[in-house]
Amino acid sequence: MAAKLIKKPVTGMKDILPREMEIRDYLIALIKKTYKGFGYTPIETPCVENIENLCSKNGGENEKLIFKILKRGAKLDLDSASSEQDLVDSGLRYDLTVPLVRYYSNNAQDLPSPFKALQIGSVWRADRPQKGRFRQFVQCDIDVLGDPTNLAEIELILATTTLLGKIGFSGFVVHINDRRILKAMAAYSGFASETYDQVFITLDKMDKIGLDGVSAELLEQGFDKEAVERYTSLFTAMEGTADPLAALAQKLGDALPAEVYDGLSQIMTGAKNVSGADYILKFDPTLVRGMSYYTGTIFEITMEGFPFSVAGGGRYDEMVGKFTGTPTCACGFSIGFERIVTILLDQGYTVETEEKKAYLVEKTMPMDRLAEIISRAQEERKQGRAVLVSYMNKNRKFQKEQLTNEGYTEIVDFYTEELKK
Amino acid sequence: MAAKLIKKPVTGMKDILPREMEIRDYLIALIKKTYKGFGYTPIETPCVENIENLCSKNGGENEKLIFKILKRGAKLDLDSASSEQDLVDSGLRYDLTVPLVRYYSNNAQDLPSPFKALQIGSVWRADRPQKGRFRQFVQCDIDVLGDPTNLAEIELILATTTLLGKIGFSGFVVHINDRRILKAMAAYSGFASETYDQVFITLDKMDKIGLDGVSAELLEQGFDKEAVERYTSLFTAMEGTADPLAALAQKLGDALPAEVYDGLSQIMTGAKNVSGADYILKFDPTLVRGMSYYTGTIFEITMEGFPFSVAGGGRYDEMVGKFTGTPTCACGFSIGFERIVTILLDQGYTVETEEKKAYLVEKTMPMDRLAEIISRAQEERKQGRAVLVSYMNKNRKFQKEQLTNEGYTEIVDFYTEELKK
Repeated sequence: MAAKLIKKPVTGMKDILPREMEIRDYLIALIKKTYKGFGYTPIETPCVENIENLCSKNGGENEKLIFKILKRGAKLDLDSASSEQDLVDSGLRYDLTVPLVRYYSNNAQDLPSPFKALQIGSVWRADRPQKGRFRQFVQCDIDVLGDPTNLAEIELILATTTLLGKIGFSGFVVHINDRRILKAMAAYSGFASETYDQVFITLDKMDKIGLDGVSAELLEQGFDKEAVERYTSLFTAMEGTADPLAALAQKLGDALPAEVYDGLSQIMTGAKNVSGADYILKFDPTLVRGMSYYTGTIFEITMEGFPFSVAGGGRYDEMVGKFTGTPTCACGFSIGFERIVTILLDQGYTVETEEKKAYLVEKTMPMDRLAEIISRAQEERKQGRAVLVSYMNKNRKFQKEQLTNEGYTEIVDFYTEELKK
Repeated sequence: MAAKLIKKPVTGMKDILPREMEIRDYLIALIKKTYKGFGYTPIETPCVENIENLCSKNGGENEKLIFKILKRGAKLDLDSASSEQDLVDSGLRYDLTVPLVRYYSNNAQDLPSPFKALQIGSVWRADRPQKGRFRQFVQCDIDVLGDPTNLAEIELILATTTLLGKIGFSGFVVHINDRRILKAMAAYSGFASETYDQVFITLDKMDKIGLDGVSAELLEQGFDKEAVERYTSLFTAMEGTADPLAALAQKLGDALPAEVYDGLSQIMTGAKNVSGADYILKFDPTLVRGMSYYTGTIFEITMEGFPFSVAGGGRYDEMVGKFTGTPTCACGFSIGFERIVTILLDQGYTVETEEKKAYLVEKTMPMDRLAEIISRAQEERKQGRAVLVSYMNKNRKFQKEQLTNEGYTEIVDFYTEELKK
């Protein structure tokens, strides 16, 4: 007798039931169709990546959450292994950006330039399990590789908001900032450059603790009082102005390179002026984005009725070059796929499907008659209808309830007695 | 300076380029549509499974090929670990059957009965890398859980051949056998029951080495001459008969339970008599199928012009019950997804796509004019067309060639000079 199977999925991962699956499949089809309409091309990378690539410091905190894969065969030497490193040669990808960069450097000669990639795929992070957060989840990214111009950003914003609109959402605010503005503000204030990231982590809490809170926290962390005051003065200078970006630029003066200001204004003007633009563009100097690989524009989208962002991204012009030696600019936008699935599930969203029919057949049905019934189902299927042929259960009432729940709108019973007539 | 990235995917896995991706996406959509037409419901399980489930002896030889995942945090104790087992808690699934059985036992209360599942998902096997065979590959399975009747087999055969027909294949032969017939033949011949699997491994080579070859190999392996002769006499008894299954049953007599013969004949009759049946049904006493979990009917499909089978499956009535304690019959059919992708790629198959248009814009285009051009693209996209907006490269001729290769049928140039006119 074999050991009993463990019925539950591994910790933090989940089985996807038919109803959720329907929503996921619908979303994926809609995403592919919409993004392909913008010229993004679907690609795929293996779920398993070289451990060196995963631990290249481009994954930030995610590198602590890697599911690592044991070496196999002769390569695994337990006796001589002194650390984890000696035992593993690969791991599950924790995002789609590191694999994309590897993919692009491996295949650039076979790809158009610029290359607009669409990726929908699972990633894995050994995060502390919590409600609504799973250790395997789908990410959905669009990226443009090899386009140094603002067109990349504008099209990414358009594609993402168009998609969100098609899903049924509205009231989008595109929060936009530039990593170089963040840095210019920190430099202007007199923070030491090695402390920038620490300053930004505190700045990121602005929406929760306010400007006073940020100021207090920075002081508490031991930052120079004068620097903190100069920093907060930048934010107060923008308050209530019609064009906060211009106000900030004026105040920063030479600390902000003119091309950074011009670039961001251009993107905002361009994205605003596209006809039918269905979003508000908001310069947001408190937008930080976690990943250190961002080099320029960064953005996030929020929408009416939801307290969190549903999409985020930015420009990472140095990541490809740092690894491959060939500088290649890049810019991407990622939607919160799992978040959107959860919203649709919570809203009781139902995917419109074609009519489904069920034929229920008594178990005693002779084979020649059964073949006739199946033939009839086959005819209907040929005409594009979904027809389930199933034996009748003892509890036919319950079976019909189940089928109705599964979306079967017509149920036809076939009894053996019919034959006797 | 960070270390250089490893450009290649991990050994034995591959990046999927746009052209192959197009074929894969097309196939997946066709599979889902077709199988849903037969009442199969898409489901998904995590790619990572409990190591105990993967090593439950239901995976046969595949259990030697598992990508195992290292424990994390405090659970990983390198110093006290004396074997691989101490280091890992999970692994990548090597098939979709073990996870399906776990899924069903975990969720049966929320699923209709019988439950018809459709799974399309990646599996991983650390096989020796070889041409056309990868360590990550997609499997595509349909399974019926909880249907003890022949309807399960007939519908599986119909669904699978219908799908293959829609992909564009023809000339199907459905090879069909029953594990109990294999066993009855071995018992009749006088082989010891513990040697059955060894006998079947040799029998499986019939198509390559013929009956004489099988006989010679069995003798070489030290099997009793009389048993081998009785065994080969069963095959010669079927030769040239109109109904080999009936001829075999007659010869086997009491060694073959009547219900096994009746079951298989019924399935063959039923599947034959369905109108529009687009296949030949062939009782194939040499069909073995590797997995030991099969308990009854087994089948494979071959098709004109290809020397290998493109689909296979069978009944495994004991696997669910053995693990969960609740007996649940099950029957499934799997198509060779990667094989089919390779065939279509080799045939130069092109997926019919909607018309794609590219707007090429000079880099010097002022933002207000660019917004107009993008607006025009947005209008076209709203009408369902795919429009790429891209900056002109220096080598415009090469760029246009690339775009043509990517399927862009119309390319519109936008020059800054237009404005001057």
